[in-house]
This record gives sequence, structure tokens and C-alpha cells, in this order.
Amino acid sequence: MALTEEQQADIKAQSSQQLYTKRPISPGLEEMLYQAFPVLDHGFVRVVDYMGNDSAIVQAARVSYGTGTKKVSEDRGLIRYLMRHYHTTPFEMCEIKFHVKLPIFVARQWIRHRTASVNEYSARYSIMDREFYIPEPRVLAMQSKVNHQGRGEVLSADQSEAVLSLLRNDAQKCYDDYEKMLRNPEENGFGLARELARMNLTLNSYSQWYWKINLHNLFHFLQLRIDSHAQYEIRVYAEVMLKTVRAWVPLACEAFEDYRKGAVTFSSTMMNVIGKLLNGQSVDQADSGLSKREWTEMMQILDHYKS
Amino acid sequence: MALTEEQQADIKAQSSQQLYTKRPISPGLEEMLYQAFPVLDHGFVRVVDYMGNDSAIVQAARVSYGTGTKKVSEDRGLIRYLMRHYHTTPFEMCEIKFHVKLPIFVARQWIRHRTASVNEYSARYSIMDREFYIPEPRVLAMQSKVNHQGRGEVLSADQSEAVLSLLRNDAQKCYDDYEKMLRNPEENGFGLARELARMNLTLNSYSQWYWKINLHNLFHFLQLRIDSHAQYEIRVYAEVMLKTVRAWVPLACEAFEDYRKGAVTFSSTMMNVIGKLLNGQSVDQADSGLSKREWTEMMQILDHYKS
Amino acid sequence: MALTEEQQADIKAQSSQQLYTKRPISPGLEEMLYQAFPVLDHGFVRVVDYMGNDSAIVQAARVSYGTGTKKVSEDRGLIRYLMRHYHTTPFEMCEIKFHVKLPIFVARQWIRHRTASVNEYSARYSIMDREFYIPEPRVLAMQSKVNHQGRGEVLSADQSEAVLSLLRNDAQKCYDDYEKMLRNPEENGFGLARELARMNLTLNSYSQWYWKINLHNLFHFLQLRIDSHAQYEIRVYAEVMLKTVRAWVPLACEAFEDYRKGAVTFSSTMMNVIGKLLNGQSVDQADSGLSKREWTEMMQILDHYKS
Amino acid sequence: MALTEEQQADIKAQSSQQLYTKRPISPGLEEMLYQAFPVLDHGFVRVVDYMGNDSAIVQAARVSYGTGTKKVSEDRGLIRYLMRHYHTTPFEMCEIKFHVKLPIFVARQWIRHRTASVNEYSARYSIMDREFYIPEPRVLAMQSKVNHQGRGEVLSADQSEAVLSLLRNDAQKCYDDYEKMLRNPEENGFGLARELARMNLTLNSYSQWYWKINLHNLFHFLQLRIDSHAQYEIRVYAEVMLKTVRAWVPLACEAFEDYRKGAVTFSSTMMNVIGKLLNGQSVDQADSGLSKREWTEMMQILDHYKS
Repeated sequence: MALTEEQQADIKAQSSQQLYTKRPISPGLEEMLYQAFPVLDHGFVRVVDYMGNDSAIVQAARVSYGTGTKKVSEDRGLIRYLMRHYHTTPFEMCEIKFHVKLPIFVARQWIRHRTASVNEYSARYSIMDREFYIPEPRVLAMQSKVNHQGRGEVLSADQSEAVLSLLRNDAQKCYDDYEKMLRNPEENGFGLARELARMNLTLNSYSQWYWKINLHNLFHFLQLRIDSHAQYEIRVYAEVMLKTVRAWVPLACEAFEDYRKGAVTFSSTMMNVIGKLLNGQSVDQADSGLSKREWTEMMQILDHYKS
Repeated sequence: MALTEEQQADIKAQSSQQLYTKRPISPGLEEMLYQAFPVLDHGFVRVVDYMGNDSAIVQAARVSYGTGTKKVSEDRGLIRYLMRHYHTTPFEMCEIKFHVKLPIFVARQWIRHRTASVNEYSARYSIMDREFYIPEPRVLAMQSKVNHQGRGEVLSADQSEAVLSLLRNDAQKCYDDYEKMLRNPEENGFGLARELARMNLTLNSYSQWYWKINLHNLFHFLQLRIDSHAQYEIRVYAEVMLKTVRAWVPLACEAFEDYRKGAVTFSSTMMNVIGKLLNGQSVDQADSGLSKREWTEMMQILDHYKS
Repeated sequence: MALTEEQQADIKAQSSQQLYTKRPISPGLEEMLYQAFPVLDHGFVRVVDYMGNDSAIVQAARVSYGTGTKKVSEDRGLIRYLMRHYHTTPFEMCEIKFHVKLPIFVARQWIRHRTASVNEYSARYSIMDREFYIPEPRVLAMQSKVNHQGRGEVLSADQSEAVLSLLRNDAQKCYDDYEKMLRNPEENGFGLARELARMNLTLNSYSQWYWKINLHNLFHFLQLRIDSHAQYEIRVYAEVMLKTVRAWVPLACEAFEDYRKGAVTFSSTMMNVIGKLLNGQSVDQADSGLSKREWTEMMQILDHYKS
Repeated sequence: MALTEEQQADIKAQSSQQLYTKRPISPGLEEMLYQAFPVLDHGFVRVVDYMGNDSAIVQAARVSYGTGTKKVSEDRGLIRYLMRHYHTTPFEMCEIKFHVKLPIFVARQWIRHRTASVNEYSARYSIMDREFYIPEPRVLAMQSKVNHQGRGEVLSADQSEAVLSLLRNDAQKCYDDYEKMLRNPEENGFGLARELARMNLTLNSYSQWYWKINLHNLFHFLQLRIDSHAQYEIRVYAEVMLKTVRAWVPLACEAFEDYRKGAVTFSSTMMNVIGKLLNGQSVDQADSGLSKREWTEMMQILDHYKS
């Protein structure tokens, strides 16, 4: 992980500041604030600000439900009820801001979530750092035979070394030439505009951004990106972020992990099959109303929970 | 349903027009275009324009997946796969525009869906019509004893009549005074600014708007508003809209009805219970890990599908 | 202004709490936190949470511009530069949450701004308070003769009294009947479901909500709603909110007031006219390329700044 | 421009289809539908669908203003009024869908506009084409001395050739190795997963997407991206898109070009200076209340229109 000395000094200063506020705080997240959690070889995630906590969710829900529900539920029960029944607006009342360093091909996936605010390091204004994502051999895998967007078996040690050396050399050569294009003619370069030179960089170059999002939309992001079908290189970011969310809003995060992250959804046709199975009837694919693909997907899930 | 004569003439003219286009069309929706489907006592829903059809969804998905999947799936299978696995962006490629007439208290719920474009009749510029929603006796119900936001048993005929007469008289009295405030002093009124006078109207007054949304967001709206927990007065609008969607994109709508509208989601704790039940083990609430409320909710669902 | 005793006790408790935080704070806004600023006869605005301050805007901008601009500008200059050149994303890095009490017809205008998070008091769950907006006589004006959505001359004292008594009596009668519909049959009522009874209320009934928005979108809201063409009843809310923003982010707010709130935009045709006028040439409407309406609008603006 | 033969056949088939519709059409845009307009060396823009036309804007506005304005304005006047006074919602009632082929570094800027729907070619599923953006020598410029994000003087022929050969060779080498990583071990490759191999590509590699947006948001995109400060490589896309918009909604586009694209905004302090200048008074920077930078920016604009 490559934080500049200046950044490290900033983090140290921020982490030790103690200010008074009348705002609600999250003791768990205060502990983690500003710390850079390493991800991949040079990336990181750090929380730079937040608004609200579990109580802010409850408070917003109580505005909606007014005196009608005041006595009904204590906080945990209410938060779980909101999550289970998709009453999502109270979760929008919490907000978090991350500073993330990540490879450009990961940033391209990430930015497809449109409900966040972003300030990215601009390669039109500034010069990119010489840093590229080079995978660890253990995650270098072949194209999956069964999944168009997935990975299959891991490469052998020899193959890995060959691939890594291609990645390393190409990224370095491209960066060397990027630098040469940028250098002044007096220094044997071309003084090319930054906005042009950047196009010579490879997609594993690291960028960084501030990324701010509300808790509801963050849960949606995490649900998609922590999923086993998400690409490993974005999943590891999501996993680190989930840890910070657990510290921030422990009750909401627990409800998320129960009712969203680990949840399973069945279509009405699938529910008919489950009903018959629970009645002890036997069902097969042919008369289930499900396609072969759906049948297989469903049986894998049920077998998992039966074992 | 109160369409002005002018509106009816417009609809007739639009419905009979035949223009050439190179764009994709939806034959089913062309049949329904511009027709006003009645909802409640004076409301309506009509489709005034649309973009795309089932093929547009497929086409957008194929851009994403490129040649890698070209041969894999025919259209219906691909659309169902996209719906089942929450690949939602291709559904955003279709767009529809409705003209809706609805009571203001329904409009206030409806507008909470923020992902649509809206042009509402402005009571700052124009004078509202003398039209109020007066429920049919069969939907006049008491506050539910078990559900803070629901309805319980239906009122008796006498009670109904008493309530309806309150609703009718208050709405009319308020409208009479609204009109009086607006009338010129020479005509025994006050010439009050429209933006002020409107505050005297009751929430069952009808308004109307153009409402434009993409198919993905429309499905989300329909899922929430067709649900049995949605208020009857908005559900009836959702049901009519669903019919137009069925005519427009029959494959996508079928997938929506299977995988969303009729779908059931279980938490991981609930899945553990289902796994045990499928194994023939007995489970009770105490050792299920579920709260009493969750247990009850879950057993009601399973009993429904077992019967 | 009608805060319940319970709310007042909450505010007192929150206002006096002192917690430690490592987050950036805004000293000016901390002073105002939780206080309810009265608006109209029963409404209020209060800030219940915030994230970020002027430095957070600068910090986000520096992420984008990187080392390339580090030395260039001190904070005020950078913030003014961002505002002047519509570099809007750094302003999204600040967030604020308001608790607002407002008449329903104002809420209907307000909610058209779709870029905020909202939790509104729900009249499906809970019973509305007996509180209506009754304007002060000095703001009771006739429909403007020149502006389809504006107000003209103020009503006479007699006219005012007559209008106010209509407003007052109708709102009270509707609320009385609302309560009667809700009361149990044993108490001479009908026990009607809340979601139905609410339709009998008038549009000047007060509601309340939590409303959370980022600074960029808030500036957009304020620009539209502080404008002299905005309805008085929403403008007074915007004016109070602007005061809180001034305390929160004084540099950004100053830039907003200079470059947005007080700014004037001219079309290219208008700019040609200004160019000729600055050259000392005379121009008249006929050969200006502007319509009569545009010409008049423009000359009014120029005359204002020449005097 | 590299459309596959298959794509070209599709375009030919679509362009010649003639279907009946009851929907409003735009005769000008029908002419252009499906045609691929070349941009840069291998990119293109083509319109693949649209909804609405100038009349749809008028129709939506009339819903809002109701009978109150019916007689006031004919269409052109109303559209210009809406644009001039930022009544933006009627412009949201039109929608357009583009198919765009563009270099990845351009796509990264473009995607920052969050108000569109996107389906991008996925390099997780499919193999990228061997196509890179190699600038024409006449646009290869040095870093601007005065503008941190701009270009200065054009490179000499020798320098250009050297830079182009770096760009060409690096992109080709990276693509060769990308292909090698993807090839099966039997064919002297590694069978690497596509989602990994793609990280070796350079940022000038071409991607493509379907991009759908409403007219209001499209105007915002065009205003920012047609501006002389926008990077040349995205500006050329915006210019081609503007031509399609002119064909689609000629009245709205004319209003956009007058009141937005060519418009100038002055702060209140600047307006005071203009007022004095129009009065024949002399003003200098020191007592203008403007910073040196603002003064210079403003005088450049005024001088432009005075000449």
C-alpha cells in the first residue's frame, strides 16, 4: 500500500484530533476513522467522514410512523422490521464517505453504481503514479468453462510467472512512455498534454477517489459486489467496506447480513415446488414448470441448506 | 371518468393516426395507445408514448455480453435470466409515458418514487376541477387491529352512508369556497391568487399528470404498489398499468410476474429452517433463531404453498 | 410554532450534549444544531445533522486536481473558482439533514426536488395534528394580472377577514369530521382506517418530515425557491435554510450568493445587444433579434443595474 | 470506423424498415435513424431509438399550465420561454438512445454523467477488438502553460511522429499480450480469464455502449462537453450528437443553443460593473470588487461581444 509520507502525516494528525460535537456519533467507526485498510497490492479503503448511526435510522422511521408505533418496538426489532419489509428510506438517513485507491478496471465497474458522489483524481490535471495492480499467483485463474464471466482453475506456477511478467513488463513499458511523453523537450521528452498522454496507461494502473453514498445505496452496492459472482478484485474492496459498516451501524448491518446478503429469493413456480417437497410429495424437473437451468440452480441451493 | 370533450376529441384523433416509423414498435401496446382506462370514480390511466419492446431489452443485453453469449439463449430465456439474476440495466432501455388522473392523497404516495419524470397540472397557474374521490361503500373499512397501516372489516351500510356524506359535503363545501375565493369581486368573490386559494381543497381532489419512467423503475414501482399491503387506492392504478405493460413487453412482464411479483425471499436463518424441514426434521420457533413475528410470517407463507 | 413538550425536551437534551469526534466540524452550525426556527404560523426548520464543512469541499477538489494545483489557490479562491466554473462535484461532499414542519401544499412543491432523501410523517400510520396554515393578512393577495402564477395587490382588511374565516372554518370542519371518522363507534365515531380518513383534510394541514440532501443539490433548491417568482410560502422556508447554510459553510455560501443567487444569464443574442450598447451604439428591439418579451425582461435587468 | 459486416447488415435492414405507429414521430430524426456517424479514427455515434418530439414538450407543459395558458403562446414561443426560465421538466418528456463506440479514457469522462442508462460491452464476458485511438497529428498538443487541464501549441511533425509511434506500439504490444493470455494453452497461450486479461489493455482501446438519456439531461451533457474547455476527444462526440438533436427537436435545440450553449452568466458584482459601464462610467479592477482573475475573464467576454 502506497500512501505518500504527506498522506500518512495527514492521517496521523486527523486520527488524533478530538473535537466536540452535538451530533450523533458512532463510537465503533470513530475508532477506525481515517485509517487506510490495505486492499490488493497497492490499494486501500479508508473512511474519511460519516453522518448518523443506528439511532438515526430509528429516529427517521419514528418520524414516519409517528406516535402510532412509538411503544411497539425497541430499536433492534424496528431496524430488522424495516430491512425485512423493504422500508428503505430510513436507511438513506445515514451517509458515509470513503477514500479509495483502486485499479482503473475496478473503478470502471464500481462507477456503474450511479447513486454516489465521486471526486476522482484527474489525469487531465495531474500525473498518475507509477503503480499497477499485479495479481497474486493464487488468484490467477483460467476462464471458467461453465460461466461466461467467471474464473476456473488456477494457473500453474510456470504459467503464472509467465503471465505476471507480461503484465508487469507491459504496464512498466507503457508508464515509461507515458512519462517520456510528459517530460519537457529539454529533458528528452515531448511535453505532451496530460489529457493525451494518459491514454497510454494500462487498465491496471491505480487511481483514487472520494466516494460518498447513503447507507441504503451502500447496502445495495455491497450485496452485488460481495456476491460470489462478483469479480474477486472488487469483492475484496466490498469486504473491507462491510467491516467498516459493521463498526458504524452494527444493528443495521446485522439486519443486512441476515435479510439481504444471505437471503434467497424463489419465484412463485419455485415456491410451488418447495410446497410440494414440504408435503413429502416428489417433484421432478419435467413437471415442475421450471427450466433445466432454474431447476439446477434451485436444487443446488436447497441441497446446500439441507446438508 | 371525466375527460373533457376536447380531450376525448384529441384521443380520438391520436388513436386513429397512422405514421411510418423505422423505430421498433410494440404491436400489443399500439392497440391500447391513448385509451383512457378508468380507475376509481373519476381517475384514469392512459399510455401516451413508449420506447422499445422486448427485443430492445435483448439487444441491449447483447451489447454487454457481446459475441460471448450470442448463440446461448433465445430471447425469452435471456430475458428470464436477466430478471432472475438482477441484471437490471437492459430493462432501463425501455421507456413509457402515462397520463394519469388521480386523487391528491394518492399522488402524494406515488411521487415518493423519485426515478420518474413528472409534469403535474399546476394549481398555481390553473383552476382545479370540481372532482373528488368518494370511495365505494365496499372499500370503506375500519382501521385494522393488527396492522398499523391497514384496513380491517368493512363498515356497515349505515356507517358507510354517514362517512360518505361527510366526505362528500366537506369536499363540496371546500370547493365552493375555493371557487368563491377565486371569483372576481364583481362576481361576489375575492379574486384571490390561485396559489393561495388551492390550500382550501381537500386531499381527495383530483389532479393529473404526465409520468414517464423506464421499465426497470416501473417494475419496482409495480412490485411495491401491487402488493397486498399497498393502499387499495394506489393498487388499482398499479393493476391497470400492469395490464398495459403486459401488452407492451409480454416476455419481460411474464418474467417480472414470476421472479418479482410472486417471489418470496427468505433470510439465511429462515433457509436453515427450510433445510431442516426438507430433511424431515422438526423445528420450532424457540430454537429456530427467528423471532415470533418472523416465525409467524414465514409459516404463513409456507402453509400457503403447501396447501 | 407547535413543538410538543416531548420534542422540546428532546431538543434541549440534544442541544446540550457534548461528544468527542474525530470528524471535521462546522463551529457555526454546531451553535444552531437542533434549534427549531419558526416559519409561517406553525411551521419550523431545524438542522438535525450535517457532514463536512468548507474544508471538505476543498479536500475533495484537491483529490481531483492532485498535486497539479496544490500550490495554486487558498481555500476561498478555490471554492469561488469551483462555483464560478460549475465544478459541482466537490459540493456534493457535504450533506445536511433538516427536520421541517410545513403545510401539505408546500410539501407538494418541495418534493418535486427528487435528489433528496425523505421520511415524512405518515397519515396511514398515525393521526395528523389539528394544525393548519392560515396566512397573515399582509400576504393575502389577488391573482396577478400579468403573471399566471403570481400574486398582485393585497386584499383589503374586510376581504382578508372574509377569506381567512373561510379558510379557518373549512379547515376546522374538515378536521372535526376527520376526527369523527377516526373515533371508535363506542365514542360516536366510525373507526375508519387512517389511510382513508386522511383524504378529508385540507391542503393547508401541516405535515412534517426529515429531509436530507447534499450541498450541491441544496444550492439548486435554494436558488429556485429563494427566487422572487417562487411562492411566498416556500420562499420563507428557503430563506431560513439559507441562514443555516451560511453558518455551516460560510465560504461556499458566499460563493453561491455571488455566482448563483444574484447571477444573471444572457443569451448570445442578448450578449450582442450588450456589446453594441457598451460600444455606445443604439439598439432597438426591432433589430435586436429579441422578442418583445425578451427585450423587456432584459431592459428591466439592465436598468436595475444602471441605477 | 469499424462496423462489422454483421452490424452493417443490421443497420441496412433497420434503416429500410417501415412500420406503422400511432406515436408522435420526428421526421428529421427518422431520416438519420441507425446511421453510424464516424467520430475520431474508429468511433461512431448512431441513434437507435427516440421518444417524443417538440410537440411532446409543449404537450407536457400544457398539462402543467392547464387552460390558464392555452391561448398564450404558440409552440416556439412556449419552448423558448421554458428554456429561458429553467422550466426543465417538460424537456424530460423526450428520450433518446444512442449506440456509441469510443475510447475507454473518453468513456471514463462520459460516465460521470449519472443520469443516463448504460449497457456497455463487457470485457468480462467477451473479447475486446484490436482497435485503439491514435490521434491525428493536428490535435497532438503540448500541455498548456496557462491551463492545468488544457492543451497548448501543436507538436512539430517529428515530435508527432515519435509520440504516435509510442502510442501505436504500446497499444499493439499490450493487445498482443492480451490475446496471448486469452489463447488456450494448446495454442501457446494461457487460457486466462477474460476479466483478468483485460487489465493489460491501454486506455485508448475502444469500447462501445448503448446510452439512453432524456432531453433535459442530454442538453446538460452537451453544454458541458461542447464547451471549449472540454477535452477535444469528447467534444467531437458531443458535436455529432448535437446534430442529431437538431434534427430531432429543432425548436428545443434552437432554444438550447441560444439560451444555454451560447449564454453568458454574470455574478451580481459583475452586473454592477456592467451597469456602470453602460452608464458611461469608468471602472477598474481595483475598485470593481472582482479578483484579478475574474476581471480578466469578464473583460475577455465583453471584448468579444464589443468587437
